[in-house]
Amino acid sequence: MPEALEQDYTLQQLQQVTLALNSGQFVQVRRILAETAPCDTALLLESSPHKVRTQLWKLVDPDIQGDVLEELSEDVRLGIIAKMKPELIAAATEDMDDDDLGEVLRSLPDTVYHDVVSSMDTQDRERATQALSYQERSAGALMNSDTVTIRADVSLDVVLRYLRLRGDLPDGTDDLYVVDKDNCFIGALPLSTLLTNPPDHLVQALMDEDKESIPISMDETEVAQLFERHNWISAAVVDDNNHLLGRITIDDIVDVIREDAEHSLLSMAGLDDEEDTFAPVLKSSRRRSIWLGINLLTALLAAFVASFFENTLDILPVLAVLNGIVPSMGGVAGSQTLTLVIRGIALGHINQTNQRFILGKELAIGALNGLLWSLLIAGVVALWKWDFTLGAVIAFAMFMNLLAAGIAGASIPLILKRMKIDPALAGSVVLTTVTDIVGIFAFLGTATWFLT
Amino acid sequence: MPEALEQDYTLQQLQQVTLALNSGQFVQVRRILAETAPCDTALLLESSPHKVRTQLWKLVDPDIQGDVLEELSEDVRLGIIAKMKPELIAAATEDMDDDDLGEVLRSLPDTVYHDVVSSMDTQDRERATQALSYQERSAGALMNSDTVTIRADVSLDVVLRYLRLRGDLPDGTDDLYVVDKDNCFIGALPLSTLLTNPPDHLVQALMDEDKESIPISMDETEVAQLFERHNWISAAVVDDNNHLLGRITIDDIVDVIREDAEHSLLSMAGLDDEEDTFAPVLKSSRRRSIWLGINLLTALLAAFVASFFENTLDILPVLAVLNGIVPSMGGVAGSQTLTLVIRGIALGHINQTNQRFILGKELAIGALNGLLWSLLIAGVVALWKWDFTLGAVIAFAMFMNLLAAGIAGASIPLILKRMKIDPALAGSVVLTTVTDIVGIFAFLGTATWFLT
Repeated sequence: MPEALEQDYTLQQLQQVTLALNSGQFVQVRRILAETAPCDTALLLESSPHKVRTQLWKLVDPDIQGDVLEELSEDVRLGIIAKMKPELIAAATEDMDDDDLGEVLRSLPDTVYHDVVSSMDTQDRERATQALSYQERSAGALMNSDTVTIRADVSLDVVLRYLRLRGDLPDGTDDLYVVDKDNCFIGALPLSTLLTNPPDHLVQALMDEDKESIPISMDETEVAQLFERHNWISAAVVDDNNHLLGRITIDDIVDVIREDAEHSLLSMAGLDDEEDTFAPVLKSSRRRSIWLGINLLTALLAAFVASFFENTLDILPVLAVLNGIVPSMGGVAGSQTLTLVIRGIALGHINQTNQRFILGKELAIGALNGLLWSLLIAGVVALWKWDFTLGAVIAFAMFMNLLAAGIAGASIPLILKRMKIDPALAGSVVLTTVTDIVGIFAFLGTATWFLT
Repeated sequence: MPEALEQDYTLQQLQQVTLALNSGQFVQVRRILAETAPCDTALLLESSPHKVRTQLWKLVDPDIQGDVLEELSEDVRLGIIAKMKPELIAAATEDMDDDDLGEVLRSLPDTVYHDVVSSMDTQDRERATQALSYQERSAGALMNSDTVTIRADVSLDVVLRYLRLRGDLPDGTDDLYVVDKDNCFIGALPLSTLLTNPPDHLVQALMDEDKESIPISMDETEVAQLFERHNWISAAVVDDNNHLLGRITIDDIVDVIREDAEHSLLSMAGLDDEEDTFAPVLKSSRRRSIWLGINLLTALLAAFVASFFENTLDILPVLAVLNGIVPSMGGVAGSQTLTLVIRGIALGHINQTNQRFILGKELAIGALNGLLWSLLIAGVVALWKWDFTLGAVIAFAMFMNLLAAGIAGASIPLILKRMKIDPALAGSVVLTTVTDIVGIFAFLGTATWFLT
């Protein structure tokens, strides 16, 4: 990985700030922070241990605290807000986008929430109620109400004069939305169309009537897939009766895409989606220990299975030495399949029509790799322990377990999905249990049969 | 996961197409494909087993093949191109964006490449040479040359008239770029500024001179971080002398963000970044077997370590039954830390200033969780096997291994990164080796000392 220019810049800032903080030069830190863009301050906070973070936050100018909060990742933001006074939270949320406002308010404990809302002015309070009325992880929760709407029966010239009067366009505006008198969405007029056509043309002749709008209740992952497939920059959000409610912009979609992609990575290791690398030790330990507890149960289960073969192990201690190999290979092969299938489901590539193909394919790969590695392990063990029957036994167990790994890796996420359980979260623990138990049974069972 | 409307729609199409293909109704398939948007056809191809994919591709109208190719993921695209005739590839790339053109050409074998280029007209051939001159994974390779440039000393009215004459704006244009007579980049004029200000104002009074431009050689991951932090929709790309060369748009950045986020997930399971879920069995087996081979080596190493204790295992077969528990817990705890640190590095959160904090934190978590689970396993084993010394032995081994897992999980990716080795690819195999060997040594070693 080449060292990045920009990262070096942030790194220098971070070193400067850390140095100044450590030597108590708070004025210096305040000066550096005042010169830093909100997005860079957010990165600085995210890259700081939680104690430094608390100190730093106090030195951020209250006027830009709202901007910085908007840029922070969820977990870090909540950590900071938990320590802020209600009035300050209310002040910081004043200029926030609706979706960020909703997210912040949703995260507050009930008592704090009431204090924050009662510190708001009437307009903000209404905005807050509105933002909270949409379901989490839905298009509504991603939406902002800052649309620019026009009528279909006016000329481009009228639109141009209206925009000049308006004086400003919301960030990320690439389309104006065309609505009828009931505020129903009937099409989009791209700014590029507005700019490249004669001013006397009418909106209705030029607007894009095929531009899809997004239902308010659509799941955010699906909204992101639409944006990604159609290369949208923004899209209109409508209610069931096609009334225009707001719009979603690509910057929020980028967050959804990143979160969804990271979800599988973090869940498969038993971590929270928004796990903060610099959270306090106790908080992190507690979160992770649940996963360790579940794993201990499966490890005990595997030990329990092995205990059926204690007599065999007593006669042939060499089996104890080799007993880890087959489950380990099954675990790796299974998690390869599992990872691919979980990703295929997340991308919308795997569905009813091709499930059977996937199962067949992974079974075939399991058989092929099983053949290859069982021959190899047979050779290694036969030569190492000078025991050809032992070589044949471990080869058979390896083959069976790689087959089982292929079937389990492909079917477990599909079954979990049908049961409405998140495959990324539960998949690997179920898989390891299968490959461990099949591996131990196949190896120690066959050995008991042939070698004792 | 709620079933998605849109996915259902694609699913229906897929079922229709599959049904029609299976019954040989090619005319029907051609009709469905002709009505499908290129982005949806791409999804259809990506969701099809490789044989169906080849059949389907032949039924896609050659006129839109280029559009579909642009939308496909890399691995699937290369699979399709490998089977196309050079003239057809040349025809399909005609309307492609520069960055996609470069990607396609880079993937071709030398002989095919020459055939493709010689089927192109002069203009396309020049574009191809240009696109290939930039380094892969750099800003240059992401860039398109379709910028709209204006001068600083003209009025907005002149710009408006120029755009109407031009008649069209490239997709994703949110800024016009202001250049001097030497084509040096001096600022950006957002379309929103152009639309909301009086036409008699001059560009130089309104343009954004602080808008950063991207050096042509910047790494794509870093470009993506800039886009994400600043919520950009497009950005200008310049050479070392600040000459404007082109621009990068958010839709290509979204791909980079997704690929980068998936890179860790797939690499940690030993899979290729662009691994195609529906690739032929042989291709997939070959790719995955490398990882299985490396894992077999580490499993054999662990068996070799265990073989030092064969005498102990001979005397106490119960150790063989319990021997899997400690390495398993170490592996899970270590991979939690590893995953977090790899993600922290990828997001630019972990750097020299906070490495020591991370190490200390993960060590503390290891100690805390070590204490918790060693007490628990001591109790379980003591009661199960009615042997308190054995309980103490496994508790000690568990504690030591969870400490080792914390240290290894945090330090391995940092060390690998300094050695310029991708931590996501090599991290988990090194980690498992450490936690397996420490786990076996700690458990069987302590048992040999105290129990025999």
